[in-house]
Amino acid sequence: MGVETGETEAGETQVAIMEAAFRALCTHGYSNLTIDRINGEFDKSKSLLYYHYDDKDEILLNLLDYTVGQFTIEDTVDPSDDPDIRLQTLIEEILPWTLDAEPRSFQIALHELRSQALSHEEYRERFARFDQFMSSSIAEIIADGIEEDVFRQVDTERAAEHIYATIAGAMFRRITTDDESAIRTARQGLNEYIDSYLITGED
Amino acid sequence: MGVETGETEAGETQVAIMEAAFRALCTHGYSNLTIDRINGEFDKSKSLLYYHYDDKDEILLNLLDYTVGQFTIEDTVDPSDDPDIRLQTLIEEILPWTLDAEPRSFQIALHELRSQALSHEEYRERFARFDQFMSSSIAEIIADGIEEDVFRQVDTERAAEHIYATIAGAMFRRITTDDESAIRTARQGLNEYIDSYLITGED
Repeated sequence: MGVETGETEAGETQVAIMEAAFRALCTHGYSNLTIDRINGEFDKSKSLLYYHYDDKDEILLNLLDYTVGQFTIEDTVDPSDDPDIRLQTLIEEILPWTLDAEPRSFQIALHELRSQALSHEEYRERFARFDQFMSSSIAEIIADGIEEDVFRQVDTERAAEHIYATIAGAMFRRITTDDESAIRTARQGLNEYIDSYLITGED
Repeated sequence: MGVETGETEAGETQVAIMEAAFRALCTHGYSNLTIDRINGEFDKSKSLLYYHYDDKDEILLNLLDYTVGQFTIEDTVDPSDDPDIRLQTLIEEILPWTLDAEPRSFQIALHELRSQALSHEEYRERFARFDQFMSSSIAEIIADGIEEDVFRQVDTERAAEHIYATIAGAMFRRITTDDESAIRTARQGLNEYIDSYLITGED
């Protein structure tokens, strides 16, 4: 449980290394990434980076812990909003109607790391935790919505896993195909699901 | 348009190369795959393989065309079944309740290739076509279901893209996290969507 780096006070050097690793990952992609290329994005003394890390995966796993450790639902979703608004805000954050260059780079970098989970146990563990965090955040919003009579009495876990799978699938398709028209249609389909299956229509 | 290799008569040598490439991809993963390792899985004269291909991506793109070219919905789904059965059969094929070792290797290999689409235009094109094929196959089943009064009068494209995104997201999560419990819950959620949103309940 918990995310190691996020829980400790990440020092200035650590943050600089994480930022360098992220820039290098976006520029070169995972396969072509080397510790030297991360160094190339790193302003401070190169020896510092070699002092802290043995290989690129150690840096990248730390980058993942650092990024996920920083992320809280409250940064994205205002807890004082109604549950239906909170759900739409979270969806818009992960699967926006249009994806700008910067969040796009971020999603591509995240998926570059995620595809390492196909063969690396340590990446797999991180993404298992990340997905559980995301789907339980959605489940909490749904549970609040049921309590406040905004949503119907659905099975919260099933509805949350369903919504999260839909968002994740559309997001992955977006960055591996650029088929924006399909993504818009999928998002409209998701909205129809929420309107017809979740929302009580009593507000 | 269409899939080049799948449309021509793939010769015996080509098929043997494709099978060797698939085995080598499953064994070594994309990053560690080399044309020599594909050769290692190839029974025939090694020079044949070098004669046909310049690099591993050329072989893998061909493998993708060959695999997708072979796949037809009718191999999986009996066209004489009712549309609701056809839809469930297709979902069970892509997102089975339990994933055996062989289809698991196949899904992992396919996703190894798919993640190349994050940075390679040629992979991107292939997967854009593949996704369009899958979602339009689902849309056809839904359209048939509406015509036969098995399904409600929903927007077929939106429902199809929604279902395909859900399946794809859950499938990707399954092979990058092993969280089978979450996948079962997501599939139950999808079934509830189909039962409550699509099925008319008039049969």
